Amino acid sequence: MLLDVVELVGLVAFAASGALVAVSKRLDLFGVCLIGVITAIGGGVIRDVLLGIVPPTSLNTWKFLTVASLTSLLVFFLHSAVRRLRREILVLDAIGMGLFASSGAAVALSVGASGQAACLIGATTAIGGGLLRDVLVNEMPLLLHRDLYAIPALIGSAVVVACSTLGLSVDVGLVLGTTLAAAIRLLALWRHWQLPGPRLVQD
Amino acid sequence: MLLDVVELVGLVAFAASGALVAVSKRLDLFGVCLIGVITAIGGGVIRDVLLGIVPPTSLNTWKFLTVASLTSLLVFFLHSAVRRLRREILVLDAIGMGLFASSGAAVALSVGASGQAACLIGATTAIGGGLLRDVLVNEMPLLLHRDLYAIPALIGSAVVVACSTLGLSVDVGLVLGTTLAAAIRLLALWRHWQLPGPRLVQD
Amino acid sequence: MLLDVVELVGLVAFAASGALVAVSKRLDLFGVCLIGVITAIGGGVIRDVLLGIVPPTSLNTWKFLTVASLTSLLVFFLHSAVRRLRREILVLDAIGMGLFASSGAAVALSVGASGQAACLIGATTAIGGGLLRDVLVNEMPLLLHRDLYAIPALIGSAVVVACSTLGLSVDVGLVLGTTLAAAIRLLALWRHWQLPGPRLVQD
Repeated sequence: MLLDVVELVGLVAFAASGALVAVSKRLDLFGVCLIGVITAIGGGVIRDVLLGIVPPTSLNTWKFLTVASLTSLLVFFLHSAVRRLRREILVLDAIGMGLFASSGAAVALSVGASGQAACLIGATTAIGGGLLRDVLVNEMPLLLHRDLYAIPALIGSAVVVACSTLGLSVDVGLVLGTTLAAAIRLLALWRHWQLPGPRLVQD
Repeated sequence: MLLDVVELVGLVAFAASGALVAVSKRLDLFGVCLIGVITAIGGGVIRDVLLGIVPPTSLNTWKFLTVASLTSLLVFFLHSAVRRLRREILVLDAIGMGLFASSGAAVALSVGASGQAACLIGATTAIGGGLLRDVLVNEMPLLLHRDLYAIPALIGSAVVVACSTLGLSVDVGLVLGTTLAAAIRLLALWRHWQLPGPRLVQD
Repeated sequence: MLLDVVELVGLVAFAASGALVAVSKRLDLFGVCLIGVITAIGGGVIRDVLLGIVPPTSLNTWKFLTVASLTSLLVFFLHSAVRRLRREILVLDAIGMGLFASSGAAVALSVGASGQAACLIGATTAIGGGLLRDVLVNEMPLLLHRDLYAIPALIGSAVVVACSTLGLSVDVGLVLGTTLAAAIRLLALWRHWQLPGPRLVQD
């Protein structure tokens, strides 16, 4: 129940981030909605394709599609106001990322994936939508060069796998994984943590 | 039978549009053929992956590959002449788009997808090839910001789902869906219909 | 056994090529590793998704992930030194490409794909990682306009299919396919073979 609410919060945050990028690229009404929806459910679709869950759950779930479309429409018409909520969206996005990474890993384990595959597929669930968004609007994905985003996602997935190995219930894993991933992501944003770039020398 | 002919017409139009883009990007002979083939069969491959039809039908069907390759070769050598047929290609492309959206939805229903998933997967079948084309040649996909393309595709898929719900035969759905989607697309091109872009203000 | 060694060599070469591109784009430590790993195992993941082998083998195999990550880390810290080995990496990359194309076709045949699908899926295994790499760093894929890369891959896959049709053992097909694909690729590099581009005229 709590997790259902968190899932919708995550979808709203992901759709809003996608729609904002689309607005700044001056896409039209449909383009904004399409990018919003793909950002919100793209990671889940990739997860399901990698696990052989077809047709992908997100395409079958009217709640996901409705929430993502309505959020995108709202952003299209009220983007100046929404942009002022940028900080709040980042917080919700971090929580959504944590849940998607954790639940992605849990789904993978539930269909028999190995621990390693569950970690990778969980993290892919969390970052897949953002990657598709950036590729479609022809930008280098943010998480490759500026954002500490995929590492918290990997940690969240790994926590779920560890909890499952220890015999704890799935819900414990989801709560711990989501909390830890979101906390690290928010700490990284707050303290401006960055990974080092390559040392470039004349050669 | 009629639908088989329409399908080949659609493949020719899609391959030609892909190959023309590739020529304008000065790709080499193989690059032009690859982009032409991916534009023609990419949507069908994505459809099959989303539905768990593996290996994807388009990869198994020599007719599709042959038609798409020959069309691309022709465009490579005769692109100035083909470019003068731009208007005709747009018409054939609209018909192909309509059929791919409708038949994509019909295939999805036939393997047990829900109505909503069939709509989304049908539209994806129609727009997937063009999306892959634009991403591979490093352009922002046209349909995100200028073309009214995905909405007619969604309408075509929805018609097929509606016909199936009403208990009409698949062929009726395919003919109605294809005709309606193509008609709306052509009307949009002819009347220069465009969706609104976001209202941008200094902020 | 020999093939296992060749496979690891190919993974190292693919990961190194991906990581070098990522360094030149000034991605951070994680971005370099992610691009390196995706370049190395992306083709195999696409192959498995197209064949319904889920979760994809490469995501389940710790050896692949470890080799690709360590190679990427090494490139991140020692990229100036590694760049001086560019010629050697190209040779190893050609051998890896040959093996991935051949083994991709063999895997496809082993799960019942047709000869045509096996050719296409084998070549996709070899070129998929590089395509993902270039799309993610927002570059037009090299193999579309400059590199003779996909044609040797197609030939390697075709050799495996031909050997299987002739009733030869899989290992013979793999050795012949890998050798021929790598040889053609290296010849093309050495002799600067290029496919023609489109003849552009004012129009």
